[in-house]
Amino acid sequence: MDYHELLKSLAEKTDSKIVLLVSDGIGGLPQKPGGLTELETAKTPNLDALAKIGVQGLSTPILPGITPGSGPGHLGLFGYDPLKFIIGRGALEASGIGFEMKETDIAIRCNFCTTDVAGNITDRRAGRIPSDESAKVVKKLKVIKIPGVEIFVEPVKEHRFVVVFRAEGLGDAVADTDPQKTGVPVLAPIPHEGCAASKKTAEIAKEFHKQAVAILKDEPKANNHTMRGFARKPNMPSYEELYCLKAACIAVYPMYKGLASFAGMSLLGNAATLEEEIDVLEKEWNNYDFFFVHWKYTDSRGEDGNFDAKVAMVEELDKVVPRIKKLIDSTPGSALVVTGDHSTPATMASHSFHPVPTLIVSDLARTDEQEHYGEKYALFGGLGQFEAQYIMSLALAHSGKLGKFGA
Amino acid sequence: MDYHELLKSLAEKTDSKIVLLVSDGIGGLPQKPGGLTELETAKTPNLDALAKIGVQGLSTPILPGITPGSGPGHLGLFGYDPLKFIIGRGALEASGIGFEMKETDIAIRCNFCTTDVAGNITDRRAGRIPSDESAKVVKKLKVIKIPGVEIFVEPVKEHRFVVVFRAEGLGDAVADTDPQKTGVPVLAPIPHEGCAASKKTAEIAKEFHKQAVAILKDEPKANNHTMRGFARKPNMPSYEELYCLKAACIAVYPMYKGLASFAGMSLLGNAATLEEEIDVLEKEWNNYDFFFVHWKYTDSRGEDGNFDAKVAMVEELDKVVPRIKKLIDSTPGSALVVTGDHSTPATMASHSFHPVPTLIVSDLARTDEQEHYGEKYALFGGLGQFEAQYIMSLALAHSGKLGKFGA
Repeated sequence: MDYHELLKSLAEKTDSKIVLLVSDGIGGLPQKPGGLTELETAKTPNLDALAKIGVQGLSTPILPGITPGSGPGHLGLFGYDPLKFIIGRGALEASGIGFEMKETDIAIRCNFCTTDVAGNITDRRAGRIPSDESAKVVKKLKVIKIPGVEIFVEPVKEHRFVVVFRAEGLGDAVADTDPQKTGVPVLAPIPHEGCAASKKTAEIAKEFHKQAVAILKDEPKANNHTMRGFARKPNMPSYEELYCLKAACIAVYPMYKGLASFAGMSLLGNAATLEEEIDVLEKEWNNYDFFFVHWKYTDSRGEDGNFDAKVAMVEELDKVVPRIKKLIDSTPGSALVVTGDHSTPATMASHSFHPVPTLIVSDLARTDEQEHYGEKYALFGGLGQFEAQYIMSLALAHSGKLGKFGA
Repeated sequence: MDYHELLKSLAEKTDSKIVLLVSDGIGGLPQKPGGLTELETAKTPNLDALAKIGVQGLSTPILPGITPGSGPGHLGLFGYDPLKFIIGRGALEASGIGFEMKETDIAIRCNFCTTDVAGNITDRRAGRIPSDESAKVVKKLKVIKIPGVEIFVEPVKEHRFVVVFRAEGLGDAVADTDPQKTGVPVLAPIPHEGCAASKKTAEIAKEFHKQAVAILKDEPKANNHTMRGFARKPNMPSYEELYCLKAACIAVYPMYKGLASFAGMSLLGNAATLEEEIDVLEKEWNNYDFFFVHWKYTDSRGEDGNFDAKVAMVEELDKVVPRIKKLIDSTPGSALVVTGDHSTPATMASHSFHPVPTLIVSDLARTDEQEHYGEKYALFGGLGQFEAQYIMSLALAHSGKLGKFGA
């Protein structure tokens, strides 16, 4: 019996609620050995109040030493083993722009590139063509027609765009056409040997590329394109199926909405700020069992390498905590989880492998002695160190939603 | 996707270095409840200085409660799941004397024994015949010839020697010929039913034993021998393949060199002392990405049951730490790991199952509050408690050698 089978067999419908509050990249590093991290530096009276009545620990997103991207990072938080449920690059990119994939779709991440008269690549990213220019070029590609296939072409950012082929019987085992170097032509899309479904996809991709090159021939920079990460929608059991949860996502950025939709969560509202996200949470409180609330900017400022700005984003988060706590208190037996999908230390200006402080507030928490929320407190917290995928079983348990295993 | 597949997909070549400093059996026990362990007793100003700027934790060699031999202990440290990669006793013994096995070889651990006129064993270890006497007897066995097989016979220590058969198509599923008791004859080598390759090995073994008994008939003690642990060279992916690392081993004892060679490490120098090992490290610093440096005597004195002598061996280790630290500092982004393959408490005079204090020094370490290196400090260190096989992913991560998993 694996983790999912176990949870499926134990999950019970109750009136209690779960809020999974994800502060993206919240874990960090001190600026010098023995110093304070961003989270430890921030003034967080409301999170600290939760630490006093809750239990915390350090969650490892994937495995010790492994730095996750946003995809695997969130899958772990949602209770999916990120080494088992792999989201193909094309599907992740499609989810990132909020494109709703169907089971039979094949999504491909494409890059505009520049080729010379001989057809050899001179710039793999078409001079990082600005997003507004790129969007206009993408629009031109929307006229491409291939019999028997519904085709979607959507801009992403700068030189990147997404192509989705919708038809029955398409495979995703097709090699990238990006040769990863200049001075050579764009590669042909080669299907995995012996896979008829992928051969069909490769033929469609070839025809798409042929028509695209004809349309793009007079573009000064984006006169060609590569295709990478041919992928289906990931085949994941839903929150309803796994945990008996009617689940919802409240996020600003499309990628996180896409990831949540793979888990079968409803995408709520159209919030642009954290305050607005909490407005949606309040409004929808009675309509769902589980809410994934995503706060992006702790990660963004970490990625910028701006320690103080990340501290400020933690303090922003702290301000909305009382509103969430009030909701939790309004529904007996509910649980609040505060965590991140990974660390993003400002000193590294990137995602990192360091474990993430994770805090659970619930009447059922075995409280520890920690009075603040942060890395050095979490190290001595009651949850110990554990794999992030167990956050879901802990959340379900702390909201009284799991029956006893065995008699 | 498993651990090795994951690391393989993420490993990147960089200029940074990793030093894995293994103090064999370094973990210990206090002499009375509440006392200090050997490591905690030792004066280790240099290791303590590392503890202040690094992060430590307790690694479990195999699983909680499991005491490893040197083979599985080191495999874990090298990042191989010791429950998946099993080194047969014959191959381990061959590696222990520095014998370089080929893929097709079958190695066998042999014991001289004494039999009476009726052919029944009277002493399973031939009176623990001294090594110099034993080596002379082993030499006599070198004349044994079997058509189509290259045969190697090498002394080990006292009554123990190694036999290696080199030929195509040999299997290793052959039962031991040691009956594990006296008063009965040496058993025939029985192959696993239905395995033609192992039948071939058994026939060669039978012929070897027949010729050996004829040669040994006038020996006063070593007039017969048993054969145990028929084994091939373990089939392990190399460090280059798994981690993109050009790896080297600096060790004094043959067994550790053998274990390292199974992982594809180059065996460097011919050091006889710890200072000489560090000389080799300095000399070869620019030629490799990864160095496994082995210090034997913490284990040896633990096995002797000599608490104070083990303390002294820890202090010996501490003395060379500044030389290693200087090298680490000379190459930006490098990481030093200090650990052991298992504990060897002097109070037990044997290997034990207790977790091992493990310390990582790197610019990327999330420093903890520990100011000393030792069991009771590691317990509250930032790495928590973890399986020893993750030391490799942590080492790679702390030296910036792992890319991001997923986007």
